[in-house]
Amino acid sequence: MNKLKLYVDRKSQPARALIIFCRLNGIDFEEITVDFIKRQTHSPDFIEINPMKQVPAIVHGGLKLFESNAILRYLACAFPGVPDHWYPADLSRRAKIDSVLDWHHLNLRRGATTYVQSTVLGPVLGRTNPQKASESEKIVAESLSSIETFWLKGNEKFLLGNSQPSIADLNLVSEIMQLEVLTEKDINKFLGPYRKVLQWVEDLRNATNPHFDEAHKDILGVKEKYHGLAESTIRGMLPSQM
Amino acid sequence: MNKLKLYVDRKSQPARALIIFCRLNGIDFEEITVDFIKRQTHSPDFIEINPMKQVPAIVHGGLKLFESNAILRYLACAFPGVPDHWYPADLSRRAKIDSVLDWHHLNLRRGATTYVQSTVLGPVLGRTNPQKASESEKIVAESLSSIETFWLKGNEKFLLGNSQPSIADLNLVSEIMQLEVLTEKDINKFLGPYRKVLQWVEDLRNATNPHFDEAHKDILGVKEKYHGLAESTIRGMLPSQM
Repeated sequence: MNKLKLYVDRKSQPARALIIFCRLNGIDFEEITVDFIKRQTHSPDFIEINPMKQVPAIVHGGLKLFESNAILRYLACAFPGVPDHWYPADLSRRAKIDSVLDWHHLNLRRGATTYVQSTVLGPVLGRTNPQKASESEKIVAESLSSIETFWLKGNEKFLLGNSQPSIADLNLVSEIMQLEVLTEKDINKFLGPYRKVLQWVEDLRNATNPHFDEAHKDILGVKEKYHGLAESTIRGMLPSQM
Repeated sequence: MNKLKLYVDRKSQPARALIIFCRLNGIDFEEITVDFIKRQTHSPDFIEINPMKQVPAIVHGGLKLFESNAILRYLACAFPGVPDHWYPADLSRRAKIDSVLDWHHLNLRRGATTYVQSTVLGPVLGRTNPQKASESEKIVAESLSSIETFWLKGNEKFLLGNSQPSIADLNLVSEIMQLEVLTEKDINKFLGPYRKVLQWVEDLRNATNPHFDEAHKDILGVKEKYHGLAESTIRGMLPSQM
């Protein structure tokens, strides 16, 4: 089978999750950058791969696939060297991870994406929408509260009381890392109340480094461009980092 | 293992998908109605099963699970009598179905749910939001266009060029059937341009009856309450039905 091709933009949070997953699990791939700000996702060639005009997408042999959760599930099953904890074969454990991944779309993902668009990208493009910003702020806050109080309620490091990360940890933490492009005040407002969430981000980083830091260089570059600060605000909020 | 328990409200579109799936595949279950309009989803007992306070949810032995896509995947794998076409063991075919199910959340589901809330439930409760109605209308129209031109582009009856339905067909058609509670004018506006979508709804109905019609009785009751019409407008739009 031909080498796996990842069509990604490292400014995209689920694209970073795929890169980290492949690097960590020794999955050989070719990285093809499709810059969504330059609208390369709308080129005829890319639309052949993903008619929905979004990154990430993959091509693996005859398979063209988009939607990051579907891609992570596929990679975890199609490459035999991937440890079971990423997407367990046990049906009950797998179902719980699917439940988090499905919940993610209309909660943390919808809220965080809309908030970043309304408060960072919108104003740059001359578009502001205070009502959208306010609604999405509420969704992000409720989502983080659910993660802290429900999925991180035990003493284990990862979601669902797991001692090792799953693809749900990876995709959700990648979403939280997108909040780095917000102002320091906004990041504190969102993540300040959630110590377990902050620790979980750090634990996932430790479990996946050096690939985690390497994949996040570009988003810290975006942060520097907007706020003149290339250090991670999120990491600085952890008590042990202060 | 104890009998499967489905916590559902037949006014919920993914809840209906679960009921149809179980009936069709001979999965024995106990149906427990949790009325979301009466806020039974907020009772302490139900929060123990789904802290996100939504139907559907299931209990199967020691497993408590929510999110309908995750539940459908689990049922298709955990009950050995379920035919393979619902959620194929082949990794590439399975991944394509996962891709549709993941896409669904932020597209047809988000659009249709918000449109129904803004135009049917909102006004009843004295809340109107024309901006939300207009935004969600656009999302529904774009989603239906994607389904018609991309996932139903071949000559086969079901999504992704399949001759037999998958859990993606079932969950997406259940969402479209929720549009029955809109005015006839709105239903025509949304579905009128999409002949393949209309035929697909009818093909899925034929493939799953009598369970499809039985599960949709309640939503046609809601339609009658709001519009004085208990016949399916969507079915009436098919050329063969005219």
